[in-house]
Amino acid sequence: MSTAPAHKAAEWLEELGAISDDAPGLTRTFLSPALARAKVLVAQWMQEAGLTVFEDKAGNVIGRLECERAIAGTVACGSHLDTVRNAGKFDGALGVVTGVLAAANIIQSGRRLPYHLEIVAFSDEEGVRFQTTYLGSRYYAGRLGPTELTASDAQGTTIGEAIRNHSPMFPVPPPHAHLLGYVEAHIEQGPVLEKENLALGVVTAIAGQTRARVFLTGKAGHAGTTPMTLRQDALAGAAECILLVEQRAGNTSSLVATVGEIRVESGASNVIPGSVEFTLDVRDADNRARLDFCKNLFEEFETRMKRRGLEVRIEIPFVSPATQCSTRLIQSLASLVKKHQGRCPELVSGAGHDAVALSNITDVAMLFVRCRDGLSHHPDEFAAPPDIAAAVDVLTEFLSEFPMP
Amino acid sequence: MSTAPAHKAAEWLEELGAISDDAPGLTRTFLSPALARAKVLVAQWMQEAGLTVFEDKAGNVIGRLECERAIAGTVACGSHLDTVRNAGKFDGALGVVTGVLAAANIIQSGRRLPYHLEIVAFSDEEGVRFQTTYLGSRYYAGRLGPTELTASDAQGTTIGEAIRNHSPMFPVPPPHAHLLGYVEAHIEQGPVLEKENLALGVVTAIAGQTRARVFLTGKAGHAGTTPMTLRQDALAGAAECILLVEQRAGNTSSLVATVGEIRVESGASNVIPGSVEFTLDVRDADNRARLDFCKNLFEEFETRMKRRGLEVRIEIPFVSPATQCSTRLIQSLASLVKKHQGRCPELVSGAGHDAVALSNITDVAMLFVRCRDGLSHHPDEFAAPPDIAAAVDVLTEFLSEFPMP
Repeated sequence: MSTAPAHKAAEWLEELGAISDDAPGLTRTFLSPALARAKVLVAQWMQEAGLTVFEDKAGNVIGRLECERAIAGTVACGSHLDTVRNAGKFDGALGVVTGVLAAANIIQSGRRLPYHLEIVAFSDEEGVRFQTTYLGSRYYAGRLGPTELTASDAQGTTIGEAIRNHSPMFPVPPPHAHLLGYVEAHIEQGPVLEKENLALGVVTAIAGQTRARVFLTGKAGHAGTTPMTLRQDALAGAAECILLVEQRAGNTSSLVATVGEIRVESGASNVIPGSVEFTLDVRDADNRARLDFCKNLFEEFETRMKRRGLEVRIEIPFVSPATQCSTRLIQSLASLVKKHQGRCPELVSGAGHDAVALSNITDVAMLFVRCRDGLSHHPDEFAAPPDIAAAVDVLTEFLSEFPMP
Repeated sequence: MSTAPAHKAAEWLEELGAISDDAPGLTRTFLSPALARAKVLVAQWMQEAGLTVFEDKAGNVIGRLECERAIAGTVACGSHLDTVRNAGKFDGALGVVTGVLAAANIIQSGRRLPYHLEIVAFSDEEGVRFQTTYLGSRYYAGRLGPTELTASDAQGTTIGEAIRNHSPMFPVPPPHAHLLGYVEAHIEQGPVLEKENLALGVVTAIAGQTRARVFLTGKAGHAGTTPMTLRQDALAGAAECILLVEQRAGNTSSLVATVGEIRVESGASNVIPGSVEFTLDVRDADNRARLDFCKNLFEEFETRMKRRGLEVRIEIPFVSPATQCSTRLIQSLASLVKKHQGRCPELVSGAGHDAVALSNITDVAMLFVRCRDGLSHHPDEFAAPPDIAAAVDVLTEFLSEFPMP
């Protein structure tokens, strides 16, 4: 591995990270002015690498290496250019930059691929503008349905209007050839690779998710005049639930469960909490395990809160099933990672990615890159240049000899 | 017991409860227009009962039955006319109304007392206007120091200015004769008497109080990508602390401890809480027991949170020592209550009362009256007319033959 790609990747990520709608901080949202500037920059890198640049109506920028065969499928590789608010420079951008650098390596090697290669910079994964995720990759996958185009942003513009009014800066891409697979490099956004002291890992699945809101109702009372034995303290009940969540998730091998928000209604330091609401976020690669966990947990909430004289109400505003990565692609990617670093951790992605949208139409795989302190969605997000260069090497080999179905 | 005082008390409490600075709801604060109207009404009842009405510079209304002896001490009885915001009609008002009705009974009986009797309607106990409690009773007790007069209200008026600018509507009272004792009837504001199915109880002490704010700092993280074993979840830590508070207070005989407020800093449903703050309110009649409880609890917080990799910081913004009621007065009051209802529960008051301010200069006693559902500081606050009449009966006898020191 030369140090050149490491320098190049770091330089590009800094350049991209300086393009923001707001200052200070980094924020780029679906079809925003900063996103347009970022697309121009990425398109320029793609062209310099030897790719032909297209842009679709949803603002996805596609750098294409055309196969010379008359009939060929397409292998896609990429990630997203949009960000959360006050984002880091690596989430999404790393997958675009490593994809372009891998394509550049392939073109430079003179190798002819038996498939079209598309490096894609998706226009929306985070969903900040419309509160709905994967807009870019779902459009690319042909899975953005008419009913979903009606959601509107803070200005009242709908997704449909935003797409219709968008004028691509580059030629519109030719109709899709059959997709053979999709691969995405991404920072891990978690601490496992750092803990294992390894640059890369392969994703086996993207976790399914259940988000719940739990409401406990007891009885408010005077903190000074109500004996401990006569209380129906909703916050003490919530504390019991929170510890139960932690303990039960801790007893599983891969499931994670988090209570991230809690609110005492009309809370005051001298009032026994009568009513408490908290959130619950449960994720696992195994849909059955996740659903069973929630079912058993909620039953235990009922039993325990009943003992406390508390009423339980549970709302489930969001459920998303797990995405399995392709075994064939996992094996191929893992063998390349092993060649590079001796062994290859297999990870479950707890966060969602563009690969989820692509999994609806093709086999997907993901390469995770170690990030510092597992930190993401934060200005201090960081992946080291040598780790990124390792990802470029693995992607180059993977895309050079893509394992055909 | 006749039903007349029950009707009279209920009628008076309704009249007082209709006098508010805001509408809808009941709110009367220190020296407000509604408080002035309430004072006029109370003064009228006092005069009709045969008491001579005075008002001091702090707005305390005093109905006095002058002793005919040349040298005599004073026995005081009363409670407060101010309220919390959106208050009930019984907290404070009940002690004023029952005091005036007891004095009326004594005067009507023609009995001559060997001490002056003062029925006092204090102008501030709740402290809503200046965020500082017992202004009226502390002024009456001569214990409102110059340093305390500098606190200011939302309009920037200081307590000193408010008192200087206040023009009493009634003659200023003569200098205090030596106080022999103070007795106050008050709704229990708790559920014990209701649970015991008894109208009245006697207070042995007013609990001391420690209020703390506990700050836990761990590490924020992505709810989907951080394995359970690598978390430093400040909310899970707080849940452990809250259950510990509940469990340890539950193991004591009288101490109560409450976590009433909790806040996750930058909380989001998909973020592991990195930083949590919660309040703690600990009360007990036994100062030593309360201080030991806090010390041991805080040490255990340290030990347990350390195991979780969390930092603990504790602030103690408020401490108030316990007030002991006079054994002599308790015995006398309890024997009268027993005569009335067979037995007399001895209660610790978890809430503060004017008796705390008076305890600095004289012996104090308190008579608690059952209230529905233990509810207070709420529009639904309620004490039944027969229970209030029982309090009038007991106060009448107690003030007729006050146990001299």
